[in-house]
Amino acid sequence: MTAREILAVPVRRFRGDNSLDEQDLLAVEEPLQIRAGERDLVITMRTPGNDAELAAGFLFTEGLVDDAHDILDVRCDGNTAEVTLAEDIDVDRDGARRNFYMTSSCGICGKASLQALEAAGCAILPPDSPRLDAATIRSLPAKLRDAQAVFNRTGGLHAAGLFSARGKPVLLREDVGRHNAVDKLVGRALLDGRLPLHDYVLMVSGRTSFELLQKAARAGIPVLAAVGAPSSLAVKAALRFGITLIGFLRDDRFNVYTSRGRIREAYSPSVPG
Amino acid sequence: MTAREILAVPVRRFRGDNSLDEQDLLAVEEPLQIRAGERDLVITMRTPGNDAELAAGFLFTEGLVDDAHDILDVRCDGNTAEVTLAEDIDVDRDGARRNFYMTSSCGICGKASLQALEAAGCAILPPDSPRLDAATIRSLPAKLRDAQAVFNRTGGLHAAGLFSARGKPVLLREDVGRHNAVDKLVGRALLDGRLPLHDYVLMVSGRTSFELLQKAARAGIPVLAAVGAPSSLAVKAALRFGITLIGFLRDDRFNVYTSRGRIREAYSPSVPG
Repeated sequence: MTAREILAVPVRRFRGDNSLDEQDLLAVEEPLQIRAGERDLVITMRTPGNDAELAAGFLFTEGLVDDAHDILDVRCDGNTAEVTLAEDIDVDRDGARRNFYMTSSCGICGKASLQALEAAGCAILPPDSPRLDAATIRSLPAKLRDAQAVFNRTGGLHAAGLFSARGKPVLLREDVGRHNAVDKLVGRALLDGRLPLHDYVLMVSGRTSFELLQKAARAGIPVLAAVGAPSSLAVKAALRFGITLIGFLRDDRFNVYTSRGRIREAYSPSVPG
Repeated sequence: MTAREILAVPVRRFRGDNSLDEQDLLAVEEPLQIRAGERDLVITMRTPGNDAELAAGFLFTEGLVDDAHDILDVRCDGNTAEVTLAEDIDVDRDGARRNFYMTSSCGICGKASLQALEAAGCAILPPDSPRLDAATIRSLPAKLRDAQAVFNRTGGLHAAGLFSARGKPVLLREDVGRHNAVDKLVGRALLDGRLPLHDYVLMVSGRTSFELLQKAARAGIPVLAAVGAPSSLAVKAALRFGITLIGFLRDDRFNVYTSRGRIREAYSPSVPG
């Protein structure tokens, strides 16, 4: 565990009706560009560290190399891993059989990623709208679970739920992939002509990554709440686009990482003792 | 919730020293090929249902369309979604800015995926080796957590741990992406000349998907255990490659979905009670 893997950030912790400022430790998420034979093979969002292993393992498990001897060298520099392959290895060899996944969600560094997102037309959201009560936020996990028909039977699905600022469930989608659950939900809103979703809260069942923040920003969703932890890049993206990012929302508590102006705290008279 | 989203499979449930045959319900995972303008855009592993929404949402959140009017029609047939775009929409418009993620992990249907994997040189593993005690399996979650330095501080990382058949920890890797954690671990073994990992158990902190099974098969790992649920396609892949797939491994219990011959059950005299 090194400083590259953990980032300390300020956080506002809500527990029942109380809240206080503290520090939280986040797992670092940054893109790694894997190159081999003068070719950009893949950009993967990873936690820095063991990058040569990641590059070698990716090439092997994806079937691009079959043996340690196929890899002559892996040179890592920042967020790039440059793999030198043995002369007889052609990463295009199975080109016809292989499929491509296109993504605009990450660039060669976190900064480039966020810039790419801005260029894709994600406006910064107004900081004080909508306003939510802390009690409304605390009520969301139970509502999400109630609506999750498949998860309750299989334990195997991620959920994405859209709620009004008063906590009324509007739309729920589930999928084995958490990005797919959000894409289904945003797709429904798009097809119904309801974008941007400026007055809504999105709650997801897992953790939040850069990609989920990107999807929320594209849909104009100002508040993203999650049962799990955010990554470092999720927090950076939330800051950049003015999204209120909430994590660890469970058991009557939650953390607010960014744009807390949207949250109305319970009135508590400041009388000491 | 429909039959397309849930699959019932036989399972052997272990609780402490007892075990029994039951049925388990799995979330269905299958590939969806999204096509637009005569072009294969992406194959995503998803839970069937709401496929038109998923295709529309993916195109929108990835910045390929900006408006509902950009999408004239989405036609879904089995595991394909064919999107008809407005004439002025060119999905290649941002080609220079966009990155490609190459994957051989999925084909146009589950069957094609498994066949592609077989072609990639994944042999079927011998069904009775190694042999593990149920008690050894029950001991793995605590060992994985003990070794997880970053998760314990952030709550935000997936872990992949390699163990001997007697439960001795050998290697642990963590990452915000669960596939990356496995790739780092397999990459280390590859670089050390230790593949295939025929005598080892891989334990992961989350759920198991087709892609994780593919990575285990490539590395020759005969036993894959997870804290969470498997998807339907994870079980199919495990069956095909003779991998012992264990799910819901926590709180002194676990489920075995496939190849249970590797697990030595506690001796219990069959004297009726």
